[in-house]
Amino acid sequence: MPEISEIRVGYNDLVKTLAIILAKLGLAEDRARRAACLFADASRDGVSSHGVNRFPRFMRALRNGLVNPQATPELVSRFGALERWDGHRGPGMLNAYQCMQRAIALCREYGIGCVALANTNHWMRGGNYGWQAADAGLIGICWTNTMPNLPAWGAADPRLGNNPLIIAVPRAEGPVVLDMAMSQFSYGAIESYRLKGQQLPVPGGFTREGELTRDPAAIEESYRPLPIGYWKGSGLALMLDLIASVLSGGLATHQITADPERETRLSQVFIAIDAGSLGPPDRVDEITNAVVDDLHASHTATGEHVRYPGEQVLKSRRENLERGIPVNAAIWKQIQEFLP
Amino acid sequence: MPEISEIRVGYNDLVKTLAIILAKLGLAEDRARRAACLFADASRDGVSSHGVNRFPRFMRALRNGLVNPQATPELVSRFGALERWDGHRGPGMLNAYQCMQRAIALCREYGIGCVALANTNHWMRGGNYGWQAADAGLIGICWTNTMPNLPAWGAADPRLGNNPLIIAVPRAEGPVVLDMAMSQFSYGAIESYRLKGQQLPVPGGFTREGELTRDPAAIEESYRPLPIGYWKGSGLALMLDLIASVLSGGLATHQITADPERETRLSQVFIAIDAGSLGPPDRVDEITNAVVDDLHASHTATGEHVRYPGEQVLKSRRENLERGIPVNAAIWKQIQEFLP
Repeated sequence: MPEISEIRVGYNDLVKTLAIILAKLGLAEDRARRAACLFADASRDGVSSHGVNRFPRFMRALRNGLVNPQATPELVSRFGALERWDGHRGPGMLNAYQCMQRAIALCREYGIGCVALANTNHWMRGGNYGWQAADAGLIGICWTNTMPNLPAWGAADPRLGNNPLIIAVPRAEGPVVLDMAMSQFSYGAIESYRLKGQQLPVPGGFTREGELTRDPAAIEESYRPLPIGYWKGSGLALMLDLIASVLSGGLATHQITADPERETRLSQVFIAIDAGSLGPPDRVDEITNAVVDDLHASHTATGEHVRYPGEQVLKSRRENLERGIPVNAAIWKQIQEFLP
Repeated sequence: MPEISEIRVGYNDLVKTLAIILAKLGLAEDRARRAACLFADASRDGVSSHGVNRFPRFMRALRNGLVNPQATPELVSRFGALERWDGHRGPGMLNAYQCMQRAIALCREYGIGCVALANTNHWMRGGNYGWQAADAGLIGICWTNTMPNLPAWGAADPRLGNNPLIIAVPRAEGPVVLDMAMSQFSYGAIESYRLKGQQLPVPGGFTREGELTRDPAAIEESYRPLPIGYWKGSGLALMLDLIASVLSGGLATHQITADPERETRLSQVFIAIDAGSLGPPDRVDEITNAVVDDLHASHTATGEHVRYPGEQVLKSRRENLERGIPVNAAIWKQIQEFLP
């Protein structure tokens, strides 16, 4: 297995570097800084694959015109607490951030707010927008469709998206944030098991012959990863795509170009809900803490405690802010070559 | 395997019979009729396990005081499009129906409506409330928590609920309706495989020794069914419980009595969204039809087409309305003994 060397960069230096490059690539200064933060935040929180390590791909998308650096989302129609926006193929992370902000504003007015976004680009780490709602003291629910990359249950050809779904519940000690795609493993995760010469811990897809397998190479060969829960995740992926496309009026998965380098015009949904508006806000924390405590009391064979979704994030964040944000060394070199 | 004999009863006769019994057990006449319809509708749509075949259990719950036949839901607090209701331990299916109706009314006013319900009882077939929203031309999303019946991923003791989630998208030719619990198989399904002497089609839980297994008897012995997608469904089940309990201010799974005959004071969420309020309503159908058509074009090894969630329902409904609603013969006998 090739050694993957990682270096560590201070958070502020990292944001500054990325922001300079993004400004050079056509983003307005404040937008360059916000986008840089969203990349850095993902790496800071332990999700490097959708953070700085993905930055070169985003640079390519800006340079080849897939992403329009100057486009900002525009309100298309609204009715009460529900709005439809057009992302005009702007930077996905900025479109997503702005739409979750808008859902939060609607939520302050109506208790719940929902924004559907069409014509956007990859939002990188979806968890960022869950944290955004939770940091505002709100429940956040958001999801995106993707290009076809997942066969429906029973099918051989990928017609569903893995459609990541994020659900966040605020909590003073640190929110509970689920960030999951509808495939059991991402292609990135499958590749990383293969590179380490390991089998997947549970079946993650099919062989060419249609047998369930834990062999990562066989799944890369068949292009048939497994939906979570077999028929169930297959159904859930379809529903998320349907709601995103009918609410946004944008493209559904089957209309999106099936090439990671050309995937664009995605549809997304952002929902914020204010549980604190219905009763004493302390109760939200009290209830959430009790659920977390009960989960932690689970009996396990190893004696380790069961973790709630997002539990590792604050630990990674603390550690990475202290030691520096981890970045793949080769990628960091690529990024720096871009500095003016 | 014991022969399970089934008889068929005309829909109207069935509703009439159930309504008479429910009135005798203390429900007001219009409520008895509505509840009878919800039982009959589930069986009519092919979900007998949560329809008429579950009626004797509901009769017991009324007679032993678990369910209060006269209690109706009460508005506790509201803010804009978001409301909290108290179900006062009334009949779960009536509470759920009324709360989805209320979410629909809020949705007509605000584009999206959300009702959280505390202190309710088992809603029987959750899909009914998805169909209710879809029949009103709206997207419906609802879920319930349950008693602890599912170990978290990595744990041996059940502390999560299987928390059924329903998502419905309206469509002129028949809505797309997903109705799924967070466990890969229900205990009912596991039992039915055992009775037929069959292995589960995919791993559905653990042996006592903590090995994944397809053996239904081993899972019944260990009480360790599997969450869909392993760690992913485990996380999703937790999030659904958290949101239901913090929005409703009611009980979380860990506080609910872990006995199917005494399970009560559940927390639920009902959301309705009007995609048609944002643009030409025809577009909703157009987009949904195109997604369904693309799914149907999936390549399969058998040549059969892949089905969308809920696709079988209209077929079952037609057939059962024509031939009579299927009811377990022994249960039908039990029910009839109750007639005045």
